[in-house]
Amino acid sequence: KNISTLISKDAIIWLIVSSLKGISQVILIENAVSGFFILTAITIASYSLGVIALFSVIIGTLIGKIGGADNTSVSQGLFGYNSLLTGMALFLFLSGDDRWLIAIIGAAITAFFTAAMIHFMRKTGIPILTFPYIILTWFLLLTTYRLTTFKISPELKPQSLSNWTLDIKGETNWLDGAVNGIGQVFFLDNNISGILLFIALFWAGWKIGLYALIGNFSALLTSYGLGGEYNLIFMGLYGYNAILTIIAVSLVFNENHKTGLLFGTLAACITVPITASVVTWLLPYGLPPLTMPFVFCTWLFLGARKVLPSF
Amino acid sequence: KNISTLISKDAIIWLIVSSLKGISQVILIENAVSGFFILTAITIASYSLGVIALFSVIIGTLIGKIGGADNTSVSQGLFGYNSLLTGMALFLFLSGDDRWLIAIIGAAITAFFTAAMIHFMRKTGIPILTFPYIILTWFLLLTTYRLTTFKISPELKPQSLSNWTLDIKGETNWLDGAVNGIGQVFFLDNNISGILLFIALFWAGWKIGLYALIGNFSALLTSYGLGGEYNLIFMGLYGYNAILTIIAVSLVFNENHKTGLLFGTLAACITVPITASVVTWLLPYGLPPLTMPFVFCTWLFLGARKVLPSF
Amino acid sequence: KNISTLISKDAIIWLIVSSLKGISQVILIENAVSGFFILTAITIASYSLGVIALFSVIIGTLIGKIGGADNTSVSQGLFGYNSLLTGMALFLFLSGDDRWLIAIIGAAITAFFTAAMIHFMRKTGIPILTFPYIILTWFLLLTTYRLTTFKISPELKPQSLSNWTLDIKGETNWLDGAVNGIGQVFFLDNNISGILLFIALFWAGWKIGLYALIGNFSALLTSYGLGGEYNLIFMGLYGYNAILTIIAVSLVFNENHKTGLLFGTLAACITVPITASVVTWLLPYGLPPLTMPFVFCTWLFLGARKVLPSF
Repeated sequence: KNISTLISKDAIIWLIVSSLKGISQVILIENAVSGFFILTAITIASYSLGVIALFSVIIGTLIGKIGGADNTSVSQGLFGYNSLLTGMALFLFLSGDDRWLIAIIGAAITAFFTAAMIHFMRKTGIPILTFPYIILTWFLLLTTYRLTTFKISPELKPQSLSNWTLDIKGETNWLDGAVNGIGQVFFLDNNISGILLFIALFWAGWKIGLYALIGNFSALLTSYGLGGEYNLIFMGLYGYNAILTIIAVSLVFNENHKTGLLFGTLAACITVPITASVVTWLLPYGLPPLTMPFVFCTWLFLGARKVLPSF
Repeated sequence: KNISTLISKDAIIWLIVSSLKGISQVILIENAVSGFFILTAITIASYSLGVIALFSVIIGTLIGKIGGADNTSVSQGLFGYNSLLTGMALFLFLSGDDRWLIAIIGAAITAFFTAAMIHFMRKTGIPILTFPYIILTWFLLLTTYRLTTFKISPELKPQSLSNWTLDIKGETNWLDGAVNGIGQVFFLDNNISGILLFIALFWAGWKIGLYALIGNFSALLTSYGLGGEYNLIFMGLYGYNAILTIIAVSLVFNENHKTGLLFGTLAACITVPITASVVTWLLPYGLPPLTMPFVFCTWLFLGARKVLPSF
Repeated sequence: KNISTLISKDAIIWLIVSSLKGISQVILIENAVSGFFILTAITIASYSLGVIALFSVIIGTLIGKIGGADNTSVSQGLFGYNSLLTGMALFLFLSGDDRWLIAIIGAAITAFFTAAMIHFMRKTGIPILTFPYIILTWFLLLTTYRLTTFKISPELKPQSLSNWTLDIKGETNWLDGAVNGIGQVFFLDNNISGILLFIALFWAGWKIGLYALIGNFSALLTSYGLGGEYNLIFMGLYGYNAILTIIAVSLVFNENHKTGLLFGTLAACITVPITASVVTWLLPYGLPPLTMPFVFCTWLFLGARKVLPSF
């Protein structure tokens, strides 16, 4: 709690390890080596994105530490992962040279929001997941319509639902689809990064890696079967929420191991219509769905299990 | 909790009775005979709708039972009514031959959502009402804009609020209005079904039937007085939320009998502007208000009573 | 609890004092003299607005009293301020001769909603602030699109975000900006009223007045720096939420005095992008942001402090 103690060698090592764990918490694991692989995957895709990611997670972790949050939580990286994602999302979805500053400030605000959500959800016994990052990123992207310093990326165009027509045509590429899902968790659509991310998952545990593959595959089949847009499917945009959801429901927050895989797979499949729905709901604002489908589906299944203990 | 015990004769009777009670829970009562009258009213209006309704309520009840939920709640039908409504709504508001399958799957997901909401609202001491059905139906209707398998009924058209003009002209038909309100709870606008539904209400208790009439009449007068669209008023679209609200506020969740009728009638009147508001809010998405005005007004009054005990 | 006791002389004095305190609660203080200054400021700007404000706050206070709410809360004016704001907002944003009646009824419903929110948020230990007023006012303004009795002011025009273009040009007037921020809390843009409102703040405590100036100044600089619309900035539309936020975060709900000013100023600055965002979010509905940015930012910081006790 004393700032001077933070500058010792031990403190720096603690900060690095906790921040790397924070990076790995995005995919719901607590493993510094996996965090390092993920950071490498991001940096390979874009050097500046890697720098922003590292700074963002460090800021979140520091705010948790200096703010006097529960030490175990901070060390597990639980104050870093939302900040990391906000920093990366703002850097990617804003344009202009000073967006890095906005990304870093956004990452800092996210750490406060993370703390607030931990307070508001404490009594429910349900984890906050990536909710703070999603809401704050949406809010900060919307400011671009009123504040000239913030400039939104031209690919995020608001559109009235009454003018929308669906065209699902496009190429099918199942191999890309298999790798891209995990990449999209970190906004990456680069194959090498995708493979590094899978290494990060398998390093944390073979079950995590395997379940991620099952979740992604379930979402690919479901979205293909329900007639989603091929471009989106094979870019992994229907898969990343499913991967996170199956890891959360089947493994990380599963106290009853018997039906874990069954319900996680079910939850992964349900992220597909929920993603379609969230995207439609956001269309008039031109906002991306981020990981909201994962948050909704995971809350739904974790909450349901508290009342349906046999599942 | 053992599946084999469910297949005995006793178990089947239990399932039928609990499901019929589940049907009656839509209008906040627990009475298998009333449930049977309601199922008849639905089946008279549309044979296939009756089948979907029955399957949906059975699935919800089974998920509650097999999931190991509190036995009393499951037997009272509390895991069935949201599933029933989702199944019916999806069957009616989607088009295409395979919508029955989507309706049944939607009913099953609703049972999990019901369980989750019971968990999230437990500490408040306020009932979840039809919230899970409303949210899930809205979500699944929105998927039609992104997944070709789901096709929305052409009558649900999104429209920008800036292009909207109000024209309230139309025929006034007070008799239809008197009967249609209760029918719209189950999406029916058929007079015989309306009368059967009133029989279901009076069977459960003369007070419930009488209060339903008072609630519907209050809403008719309020919506007429505030200048609502005549077509909507006399099709019962301003009345069904008022009926549910007065039953909830005056009778079912009323521990203090003295002012029950007064506050229930007040709450019923307030559903009218809230309905107008919810419809406007949903216009850009082309979604129907379902029973959201009932949920909002009932939560408002039940919550208020916890802090204002003299009312 | 007995109505006859309310008509004694003591009861009338109690009602007036509690209602004046209710007026002062809008700016988070409990001081009848400040309330009187505020009422004067409103009445100077518009005689009829002053009458509506007084009636609204009295109705809210009476509902709290007659409903049997906790006596201390009612005496502190906690059942009055949301009603006051709803009454004023509806009177200003609706048009037509009978809007005063709608304003008064809206004020009454707000008192019930206030009670309900107190119940729903009790376990969080976080105050409800002006949330009930905001939500109910938005709902009642939206009814105008469906009920002919309610007519919305022509200045509230819904607009698709896809048709929106930002033009920030306009005159800069820092003196007006300094005074208008506080006025906009009560929808006033009149300089004399602004000065009276500052008197009300300083009367309650020099620190409250000083912090309000700091909060307003922070928001002026932030909104100017981030490139907001000059018209809005110098009319005080970026300042009023910042004033309320700094008072809430730094003083009223601050148990840890050391970092109060720092975090309050930070929160005040963050209201600026949040205001830009809320305005954008509401654009398709043509609704004003009211004090929602204040509520969001204050909840964020008060919630965060529960988990980050060193801040």
